[in-house]
Amino acid sequence: MDLNDHLRDIPNFPKPGIIFKDITPLLGHAEAFAESIRALSAPYTDSAITAVVGIESRGFIFGAAMARYLNCGFVPIRKPGKLPAHTISRSYDLEYGSDCVEIHADALAAGERIVIVDDVLATGGTLAAAVGLCQDIGADIVGAACLVELAFLRGRSTITCPLHTVITIGE
Amino acid sequence: MDLNDHLRDIPNFPKPGIIFKDITPLLGHAEAFAESIRALSAPYTDSAITAVVGIESRGFIFGAAMARYLNCGFVPIRKPGKLPAHTISRSYDLEYGSDCVEIHADALAAGERIVIVDDVLATGGTLAAAVGLCQDIGADIVGAACLVELAFLRGRSTITCPLHTVITIGE
Repeated sequence: MDLNDHLRDIPNFPKPGIIFKDITPLLGHAEAFAESIRALSAPYTDSAITAVVGIESRGFIFGAAMARYLNCGFVPIRKPGKLPAHTISRSYDLEYGSDCVEIHADALAAGERIVIVDDVLATGGTLAAAVGLCQDIGADIVGAACLVELAFLRGRSTITCPLHTVITIGE
Repeated sequence: MDLNDHLRDIPNFPKPGIIFKDITPLLGHAEAFAESIRALSAPYTDSAITAVVGIESRGFIFGAAMARYLNCGFVPIRKPGKLPAHTISRSYDLEYGSDCVEIHADALAAGERIVIVDDVLATGGTLAAAVGLCQDIGADIVGAACLVELAFLRGRSTITCPLHTVITIGE
């Protein structure tokens, strides 16, 4: 199965000139969704992963299904103000301005073996901040996994842990 | 296993006087997360479900894992402006003001058999709007499922399809 066949391009979203990779056709197709979870999880099936960390919002979809596939816990990284207990946060630069991600300070015990998951790797700002957050709380980051890598944006160079991607676009 | 033991109360979140039910300890516990997916899915294992519809953001976590458990597709309902293709939307009233949810207009074929999922049923506004959206696009709504029901808020009375909840608080 070529998972790329289950993505679709949406021109000019979220703004003019951008071609957005829409993953919803893949999600809606039972076999394609199942195959995406197998492919994302493949490097980690013998890695004694204790938690999958998913990045809000689409990273929740892949991360939660991976956590069940790998039979481990799921930990959310969220946008500011969404997590109810004590959090730590990381800011990162955007093209215009900055953004921030948060994790519960008690979400991961020191030495937990984790995979960090998002749907699409673009410039890498969000994922790099997520990797930093998990380092801050002492987790053992086995790797980061994204379904789609927009290789022409060179986000891979910003990620300081092993990176696994399933679909590569525009090398 | 008593799943309620894996929730925790966070006082005064998101505002003073509210006791927030935090599901993140449950998510982080592999066995509790697995049991929550089994319990949420139990009424539907022989229902020929074709898609689980999850409500952003925490509904994505339970909904995606349920879609894999039931071996069907996953369809997201999102906040306004997040879905890239043509959408339909429903507004609903909040205590102060209103909010809105959206679904891709082509996300579900007429007659698809679906379950709509969220983490917590409070006053029911979001879930009732999601049910309305799925009716608007002609899906066959087999049921709605929430992990936690805050029964004292009487949200159940607003839901016009069969409703399954796993943990009931404050009857």
